[in-house]
Amino acid sequence: MQSLPAEFLAEALRLAREHARSGGGPFGAVITNGSEIISSGGNQVTRANDPTAHAEIVAIRAACQRLGTFRLDGCVLYASCEPCPMCLAAIYWARIPRVIFAATRADAAQAGFDDAAIYAELARPLAERTVRMEHASVADSAGPFQIWKANARRVDY
Amino acid sequence: MQSLPAEFLAEALRLAREHARSGGGPFGAVITNGSEIISSGGNQVTRANDPTAHAEIVAIRAACQRLGTFRLDGCVLYASCEPCPMCLAAIYWARIPRVIFAATRADAAQAGFDDAAIYAELARPLAERTVRMEHASVADSAGPFQIWKANARRVDY
Repeated sequence: MQSLPAEFLAEALRLAREHARSGGGPFGAVITNGSEIISSGGNQVTRANDPTAHAEIVAIRAACQRLGTFRLDGCVLYASCEPCPMCLAAIYWARIPRVIFAATRADAAQAGFDDAAIYAELARPLAERTVRMEHASVADSAGPFQIWKANARRVDY
Repeated sequence: MQSLPAEFLAEALRLAREHARSGGGPFGAVITNGSEIISSGGNQVTRANDPTAHAEIVAIRAACQRLGTFRLDGCVLYASCEPCPMCLAAIYWARIPRVIFAATRADAAQAGFDDAAIYAELARPLAERTVRMEHASVADSAGPFQIWKANARRVDY
């Protein structure tokens, strides 16, 4: 088992190179369960016209489809680069407990990607962000939560 | 035009109530361009077995498919609740310049959702997070970026 993490990370980097060569974003990810690769993915943003199709998101969606679940509790995610805030938050929502990555957000910034900038934006108060965010006080904003909590058929996540 | 923002937000809340009633997550989102609704979505996490299928992500992906682009520069996103870090980062990647929301991350936390907790996790240094994150120093971690920068056919995003 000892050599597996290095092999899984090497596979994530191989996918990143492959996608970089074919004109996709230079990122790859692999999700494992024990010694098995459950899913993998490369960045598809420009080819699929999907700004959410980062390698990690592609791999998380594929793993969940394969396993028939929205939770990946027992899995490990290997990424060619430190996950951006979107992907890291998706890792939390998917309940993936462990992430191993090669390049850093600083490396991504040097290559022209906004990962580090978006981390900085998310840490700012709403009023100081470049995205204009407005909290509209409306009377029924809690309505959906009340309906959900009262719904006995709801599935918590 | 003055009444439209309130109508779009009301539609996001209507979608949130609809999904809450049918057992989905109690969230809805609408993306507009001027006076037109481009796409909308409700939370599909548990029904689609997709932890990334938050209302905002569903709406962003649908808007990009409809417009044939990975950039939504001219659009506004209306959300029944303040976007979680995954969705907010996706908003940045999609270059959506403006977000209007009803409920807050505190309201979501009260209903049992982890939005606020994940915001706090992302602000922590790697070593202090509940997700175990390991930076593996490997020799070729910059390789994908080098290939990408040298690829004349690449599409920047």
